[in-house]
Amino acid sequence: MSSNDHVDPARLFATRDLTEALAAPLSPEDQTVQSMPDVSPTKWHRAHTTWFFETFLLQPEVPRYRPVDDRYAYLFNSYYEALGDRHPRVARGMVSRPGAAEVGEYRAAVDASLEQLVGGGVPERLHDIVELGIQHEQQHQELLLMDAQHVLSGHPVAAPYAATTRPSTGDQPPELTWRFHEGGVHCVGHEGDAFGFDNEFPRHEALVTPFEIAERLVTCGEWQSFVDDGGYERPELWMSDGWAAVCSQGWAAPLYWIDRGAGPAVFGLSGDRPMVPDEPVSHVSWFEADAFARWAGARLPTEFEWELAAPAEPPPGASLDTAVLGPRAASGSADPQQWYGELWQWTESAYRPYPGFRPANGAIGEYNGKFMVNQQVLRGSSFGTPDGHARRSYRNFYPPSGRWMFSGVRLARDAVR
Amino acid sequence: MSSNDHVDPARLFATRDLTEALAAPLSPEDQTVQSMPDVSPTKWHRAHTTWFFETFLLQPEVPRYRPVDDRYAYLFNSYYEALGDRHPRVARGMVSRPGAAEVGEYRAAVDASLEQLVGGGVPERLHDIVELGIQHEQQHQELLLMDAQHVLSGHPVAAPYAATTRPSTGDQPPELTWRFHEGGVHCVGHEGDAFGFDNEFPRHEALVTPFEIAERLVTCGEWQSFVDDGGYERPELWMSDGWAAVCSQGWAAPLYWIDRGAGPAVFGLSGDRPMVPDEPVSHVSWFEADAFARWAGARLPTEFEWELAAPAEPPPGASLDTAVLGPRAASGSADPQQWYGELWQWTESAYRPYPGFRPANGAIGEYNGKFMVNQQVLRGSSFGTPDGHARRSYRNFYPPSGRWMFSGVRLARDAVR
Amino acid sequence: MSSNDHVDPARLFATRDLTEALAAPLSPEDQTVQSMPDVSPTKWHRAHTTWFFETFLLQPEVPRYRPVDDRYAYLFNSYYEALGDRHPRVARGMVSRPGAAEVGEYRAAVDASLEQLVGGGVPERLHDIVELGIQHEQQHQELLLMDAQHVLSGHPVAAPYAATTRPSTGDQPPELTWRFHEGGVHCVGHEGDAFGFDNEFPRHEALVTPFEIAERLVTCGEWQSFVDDGGYERPELWMSDGWAAVCSQGWAAPLYWIDRGAGPAVFGLSGDRPMVPDEPVSHVSWFEADAFARWAGARLPTEFEWELAAPAEPPPGASLDTAVLGPRAASGSADPQQWYGELWQWTESAYRPYPGFRPANGAIGEYNGKFMVNQQVLRGSSFGTPDGHARRSYRNFYPPSGRWMFSGVRLARDAVR
Amino acid sequence: MSSNDHVDPARLFATRDLTEALAAPLSPEDQTVQSMPDVSPTKWHRAHTTWFFETFLLQPEVPRYRPVDDRYAYLFNSYYEALGDRHPRVARGMVSRPGAAEVGEYRAAVDASLEQLVGGGVPERLHDIVELGIQHEQQHQELLLMDAQHVLSGHPVAAPYAATTRPSTGDQPPELTWRFHEGGVHCVGHEGDAFGFDNEFPRHEALVTPFEIAERLVTCGEWQSFVDDGGYERPELWMSDGWAAVCSQGWAAPLYWIDRGAGPAVFGLSGDRPMVPDEPVSHVSWFEADAFARWAGARLPTEFEWELAAPAEPPPGASLDTAVLGPRAASGSADPQQWYGELWQWTESAYRPYPGFRPANGAIGEYNGKFMVNQQVLRGSSFGTPDGHARRSYRNFYPPSGRWMFSGVRLARDAVR
Repeated sequence: MSSNDHVDPARLFATRDLTEALAAPLSPEDQTVQSMPDVSPTKWHRAHTTWFFETFLLQPEVPRYRPVDDRYAYLFNSYYEALGDRHPRVARGMVSRPGAAEVGEYRAAVDASLEQLVGGGVPERLHDIVELGIQHEQQHQELLLMDAQHVLSGHPVAAPYAATTRPSTGDQPPELTWRFHEGGVHCVGHEGDAFGFDNEFPRHEALVTPFEIAERLVTCGEWQSFVDDGGYERPELWMSDGWAAVCSQGWAAPLYWIDRGAGPAVFGLSGDRPMVPDEPVSHVSWFEADAFARWAGARLPTEFEWELAAPAEPPPGASLDTAVLGPRAASGSADPQQWYGELWQWTESAYRPYPGFRPANGAIGEYNGKFMVNQQVLRGSSFGTPDGHARRSYRNFYPPSGRWMFSGVRLARDAVR
Repeated sequence: MSSNDHVDPARLFATRDLTEALAAPLSPEDQTVQSMPDVSPTKWHRAHTTWFFETFLLQPEVPRYRPVDDRYAYLFNSYYEALGDRHPRVARGMVSRPGAAEVGEYRAAVDASLEQLVGGGVPERLHDIVELGIQHEQQHQELLLMDAQHVLSGHPVAAPYAATTRPSTGDQPPELTWRFHEGGVHCVGHEGDAFGFDNEFPRHEALVTPFEIAERLVTCGEWQSFVDDGGYERPELWMSDGWAAVCSQGWAAPLYWIDRGAGPAVFGLSGDRPMVPDEPVSHVSWFEADAFARWAGARLPTEFEWELAAPAEPPPGASLDTAVLGPRAASGSADPQQWYGELWQWTESAYRPYPGFRPANGAIGEYNGKFMVNQQVLRGSSFGTPDGHARRSYRNFYPPSGRWMFSGVRLARDAVR
Repeated sequence: MSSNDHVDPARLFATRDLTEALAAPLSPEDQTVQSMPDVSPTKWHRAHTTWFFETFLLQPEVPRYRPVDDRYAYLFNSYYEALGDRHPRVARGMVSRPGAAEVGEYRAAVDASLEQLVGGGVPERLHDIVELGIQHEQQHQELLLMDAQHVLSGHPVAAPYAATTRPSTGDQPPELTWRFHEGGVHCVGHEGDAFGFDNEFPRHEALVTPFEIAERLVTCGEWQSFVDDGGYERPELWMSDGWAAVCSQGWAAPLYWIDRGAGPAVFGLSGDRPMVPDEPVSHVSWFEADAFARWAGARLPTEFEWELAAPAEPPPGASLDTAVLGPRAASGSADPQQWYGELWQWTESAYRPYPGFRPANGAIGEYNGKFMVNQQVLRGSSFGTPDGHARRSYRNFYPPSGRWMFSGVRLARDAVR
Repeated sequence: MSSNDHVDPARLFATRDLTEALAAPLSPEDQTVQSMPDVSPTKWHRAHTTWFFETFLLQPEVPRYRPVDDRYAYLFNSYYEALGDRHPRVARGMVSRPGAAEVGEYRAAVDASLEQLVGGGVPERLHDIVELGIQHEQQHQELLLMDAQHVLSGHPVAAPYAATTRPSTGDQPPELTWRFHEGGVHCVGHEGDAFGFDNEFPRHEALVTPFEIAERLVTCGEWQSFVDDGGYERPELWMSDGWAAVCSQGWAAPLYWIDRGAGPAVFGLSGDRPMVPDEPVSHVSWFEADAFARWAGARLPTEFEWELAAPAEPPPGASLDTAVLGPRAASGSADPQQWYGELWQWTESAYRPYPGFRPANGAIGEYNGKFMVNQQVLRGSSFGTPDGHARRSYRNFYPPSGRWMFSGVRLARDAVR
């Protein structure tokens, strides 16, 4: 993780404030529920990101710092083994205390200490850890949203997170076109001095075969065709483990496609909406993305194909906007689009360390490295990714069966000439 | 269920109010958590008892009655198959909405309708159903307390329901003495016109062998001796299924005995307290009670032995008092005591219908009958049982592995002369 | 367990030989499989009954007796905790060695030692233990058959145990008639000096309400009517736990009713046979029996009702005959019939100890007592019960969800006059 | 899969015979048991390989061919979805029939048909499918051995597969030395016309960073040091999923390390043997191999590193020899050794398709492709791999938690210059 020019107090406290703003539409009860082991309650996210600053910044840097509550280290450590015992992840929904308001007090107390420590400016030697704290909290902002959607989806009655508007769209997405890339040996991984997570390093050469990549994401309408063509009923389209998931979980459509009797609809952060054919399909697992691609006569891109083809920077506005909590349809243009700010894009690549990867020393070294097996890489970013968090070399990762993240599909194929 | 003289509006609304008073110390977050499948969230209890009045009283009796929310029938039906689909019990903790405050509004709206319907006096023909609604809500008041204790016990930090006081006690319980009963053919079951649940009927004759029954409950000190003597390590003391539970669940003491490093303690509704040897042991399963009795050279009483030996009426004050949320020690007197108002008492009797048992017609017929297998009967009442709810013929019942109820142990033995 | 006049070597060795004859149709592979945790492999039954004689007779009585194999105590102890560690029940099908032939050698070696010890006559002081060994092995003979049927039923292709013939029957069972009993206080439990298991003692008085009991068993045709009337789809007919089993296990007919495309059929020890309407229905759980009875406007008899109504002795021929491995239809006569030698009959009674019950000392005391909870009593005997094993006071028992035993249904009802 | 010069009847029937020779030490009972879902019974392997020839060779090629038994298609199809329903894998141990002898008859019948079809010489057009049948059966020969070892390991008493001898070894392995490779862009994947599985294709270029690779395998003695140093108690050494496996499965040593009271020992196909420090450690999962490498300051090789460093051909004798059923110690020489014929070697590489991978058409296309996720690649071969089956481009694969295969560890590290 490299240093960053923008490590200033304003950005730190804006990040802290955004978390509270994202939690605000959720009641204390909403903030308490854990709807499955992978999901964390909202108030846990709020407390955990606070514990992170307390543990990695305040405790080492503030002389005689007293934790706000000695018991929080046990409750709000996520997975850092080096920091001692912690409350089991699967039981986060069992803990009603501290409540949402007490967590707010915890946040305020830690913010006050942060203000004292770095409010006048972040000293150079703390740039890395403050930046990491910001980036970490941004990750949890997206997690907070996708976890909240899952919690609310479990209600027998429609339960929106917030009313949002989205630009109306027609039903015809632009025709799917392909962009050619000649491949070759190219540098991949994090470049430059800006912040990056350990898993984006070291920058290194990779050999890529010529390929073509889709100019836009797969749409709901295309996915409907897959469903209609027996996509969820034909084992030959699926990885063996994926087919087992289809059978045991009863998958027959993306996670949040529902039919409450009023036609095909999709449950989202703004509640139920009619399914819009030209919007990108979301909340599909890697298994589904992989099967869809096979059905379509294509495949998923590798993570390096994606990286070589993607724009160097997210375009302005391609990030979290609480007024638009869902992916937007592609424009009519065939220009490459939807790389950032709509949906994370599954890749063909297993999540493994780059050649020469070295985790950081100490507890922070557990940040990414220990998850590098049995996961697939996603690239890009989503409508839930906060401004300033996405970059071309960013490696997101989830198990191939995961469906509750803001995931979508961009196709690729071998270049034939 | 027979009619009852005391079916008056004051008693109805006092019962309704008591539920809210019992929930008041619990935060919205506390009221949301379901700590195991057998437990229901507090706000669910508050809503379910309200749905009961709405469904069985308001809907049939109030012309053009509109339910407060059409969706509540699905959420708050507990187990009445005849009333249609319902939300799965194991997932009650997944539902954050309606929240605690909305449930309060639901209760207020239904209370207002009840006030309109019966506020001026309960018509004769509604006595039975109003009485059943009161009795039903009283049951849930005790469930609310025992479920809340379980929820709070799951916290990694001590989490009291409320600060309560209890009379200080010495450490020496009165010596255990036995009361002889000559047995014979006796009438058992509900007698008289007062309210009784269907499972207490019909009153009938039972043949009972001469027996002796303990004058007081088993104490924590006596249970400690059982533990010290290897009670949880000796399979010969246990039913086969009980021993399997010991091994698979790691039972080594009653449910809420803890040791947080400051000596033997018991977690209760007022938080952790040092273990007091002369207080009755509580929160033991039937398996444990049965093993203890075997170890003690005794056995549990049958439900009819208990009924023949018990006082005809609970003494004054032997019921729920929110200032004393735990069982009290026996007094020095050898008089029979602790039959009511301390702890439910496990019996040797499997829960089966009485000869000639007939469930009521309609959904209400599901009230008790369909649970009459794989459960053991408990008799008496507990410190969590509201005033007016207990009676000598009352049959409480739980699976033999259950431990989270307010259960205790009274010994019996065959009379030898 | 009382002494018995017929404890002679011939009976002992005839019992030993019958076990081998019952195993003979089963291949070494058949004898190895454990199709569910409740089932034991055939060769395990053969070895366990042999270990029983070795442990409880040869070791105490033969000076310097050396076990045939020291490791068998671990493998073939069923559940006697007092005798030390033992191989887990659920893993009996994992153990291929000793094989079926080696188990045969084990049996022969123990038989030779038995011959030496008691071949010339069983001394008076050994009557009890030899009798118990015989009775124990007879129990396992029936278990061997019912377990083998379950193993073979799991095959995707029809796999008969043996070809057997059964008398052809018409399709019309005799009309169901009822036998009245006046009830009252009667002695129940084991009477006289002949052998009985500990759970049949002590003989004691029981008070029984006037009742009527069916003269014959429920037939397959009657069960078909229950199925046709939605018996497996109507929760109001079922205990709550039973309905949960219907839903989670997908019960829609008795265990071995099948339809391989050639009309309704029943899988039995002789393979598939067309369903014969007037034959008794078999392989139903207590939950199913209880639901059927409710549907039929009747109930199951209590175990004492059964005992008071049943013939004092099984009629000649009403026991295991390897040429007729299934229940026979009732004759046209309305005489009470099918009490013994067809199917065990579920009762309404939970399996609990009789008043004054005392288990034997030592490991043998674990024989029955520790299973006396969460089980229901069955009375009578079945086509799989060996000659001389059944008696009126015999208490068989299984969990209410069990279906793989030779169980049937006899109805009862309260007497109305 | 390419054609092969050595497709002659002699090799076909020698392969068929070897399977029977490998099964011969196992009794019918041994051949029936399935000790966990991943294991198949011996007789299932024998039948499945036979079904493979029947389905993919005899049925298409022999006019009016009648399957030996119509029911075998259901029982002995492993995972080919395109061929219809099949018996569930987890229940293979439930099926006692056909027995071991009947399976032998099935094999003989199919062999006779094969003799008729190709006994005089394999026609050119059948080379591919006959070769695939041979290679497929060779795979199952190794599976048969590793599955048999797992079955026998579950016995409470030592149960060897066969008595074998191994050259005695001293206790000091050769010092661990490293071989440097300069990396670069190299061709990897299957080369030439000889047979290869679909997953070895297409041959393609890969970019490899300079690296060093160990000249021999990790030994038991080195693993003991890892254990002694708390290797199984230090979460920082493990992938997160691996640490979860350590905790939930109680891993504390390789799968077959045992201590029956007579010092450290290893259970193998010849039964218990004392642990020999200089023999290669075997039966470790990828999680363990990865943690060991981290502890050793190294890492696992990627599959392409392995391929670039390995000898082009297995040396003579580096394959299955039923007289030596375990891995042999490295010789004193520092020459690269133990690449083939001792233990499969875990690699750092996730099992994914090569660029341009295309599965075959039809059911055969399911051979490898559908398993290409959530698995790690192993390279080399083992003492259980039949002669002629191994090659440098061979890609074996198992889930990272698997331990029952003949797996070992070769270390690698980044080259530092």
